[in-house]
Amino acid sequence: MNLLIIHPDEITPKNILMLEGRRAEHLTKILRVAIGSSVRTGLLNGSIGRSSVVGIDSGKVVLELDQYSLEPPPDAIPCQLILAMPRPKMMRRVLQNIAAMGVKKIHLINCWKVEKSYWQTPWLSEQALRENLLLGLEQSVDTLLPEVKTHLLFKPFVEDVLPNLIKGERTFLAHPGAVTRCPVELKSPSSLIIGPEGGFTDYEVGKLQEAGAEAVHLGQRIMRVETAIPALLSRLYPG
Amino acid sequence: MNLLIIHPDEITPKNILMLEGRRAEHLTKILRVAIGSSVRTGLLNGSIGRSSVVGIDSGKVVLELDQYSLEPPPDAIPCQLILAMPRPKMMRRVLQNIAAMGVKKIHLINCWKVEKSYWQTPWLSEQALRENLLLGLEQSVDTLLPEVKTHLLFKPFVEDVLPNLIKGERTFLAHPGAVTRCPVELKSPSSLIIGPEGGFTDYEVGKLQEAGAEAVHLGQRIMRVETAIPALLSRLYPG
Repeated sequence: MNLLIIHPDEITPKNILMLEGRRAEHLTKILRVAIGSSVRTGLLNGSIGRSSVVGIDSGKVVLELDQYSLEPPPDAIPCQLILAMPRPKMMRRVLQNIAAMGVKKIHLINCWKVEKSYWQTPWLSEQALRENLLLGLEQSVDTLLPEVKTHLLFKPFVEDVLPNLIKGERTFLAHPGAVTRCPVELKSPSSLIIGPEGGFTDYEVGKLQEAGAEAVHLGQRIMRVETAIPALLSRLYPG
Repeated sequence: MNLLIIHPDEITPKNILMLEGRRAEHLTKILRVAIGSSVRTGLLNGSIGRSSVVGIDSGKVVLELDQYSLEPPPDAIPCQLILAMPRPKMMRRVLQNIAAMGVKKIHLINCWKVEKSYWQTPWLSEQALRENLLLGLEQSVDTLLPEVKTHLLFKPFVEDVLPNLIKGERTFLAHPGAVTRCPVELKSPSSLIIGPEGGFTDYEVGKLQEAGAEAVHLGQRIMRVETAIPALLSRLYPG
């Protein structure tokens, strides 16, 4: 946790915060704060300031938010991510990493190689999504919560939703067999489509291309989804 | 597994391979091969060809290597990685990802925020290192096994070893607070130094800079080691 993120409702009129649970535990056990420690603190979807630890007692940490707004959150990556629904055991890490990279719009889509059972994962609940996205923001010192949408049917998504989502933007489909190289250091917003482990089927690639996606490769190697996401975002928008 | 990697000793004079264990299980259970299936097959540290499944029996898979050398392995990333010893629970994933990205020289080093216990991990045994590096190669369709060296003392490493390791090459130290931006699309070989979770201490940064490393940032965000590695390699050598 490189940033403590708080919800505006958690602050009393006298700028006091009382934390318990995961964040309090992290502050005391990992960051080992003491009375007087200064903690970088961000307001959810707001600016970043600092607070001071004024009390620690039986698992609770009390802080005083003394500076509200020292800096804005970092710029978002201007890229919406359209991702084949990951295997549940990858889900938390993928969500945290996407949030940490600065992506603000995430579409999880169905396709042939996404097993139906993936959609039953508890990691898709609103609370679990939020928690994992927050963990990514805490890591990367950001406060803007990404938005996640799910699309359970491939064909309606690609035919009816996708064309509107990507209107006026370049859209890249990461595809190991592609002839075109993924561009480096893009100056305009874009969308990025990443398939499941094993890739999209030829039919799916065709439909995505029809909708306006450009198939691109990122070298000779085939990467796992968890590696491909930072590799692609970092070459498109090296920051 | 996008590539079956075999050791030359496993091939009989008649080009027959008999596999059991992890690879055989992966072929039958995940890739669901049958008699006649063609499997992309690479010789460890050699070229990539194809073999055909000629027998499947009680956990064993027999293949005939019918084409030895259809293509060379992909180009290595010309970057040696100098990495603070990761937390054991990250170790496997980090090794697999580094191998999958195409790095061929890995130095695991000690520093202040590396806990002594990390060096006791069984993942550092020769066999465990090899297995995890092979998993990365199988993922990325490569055959060249990376070399891993460990350096248990920071000061002798940075004073005596590092200057020779990086002689004549640019060397980047990924450092969130740095003023200089990490370059994009480098045309020459380089070395990349990545610190532990929590970063190098100021003393360590100073010593690394004295030895010739340039501190660089990769944007405003602080990334986890597992995310920083693909993000950095991909912006330096986008492939």
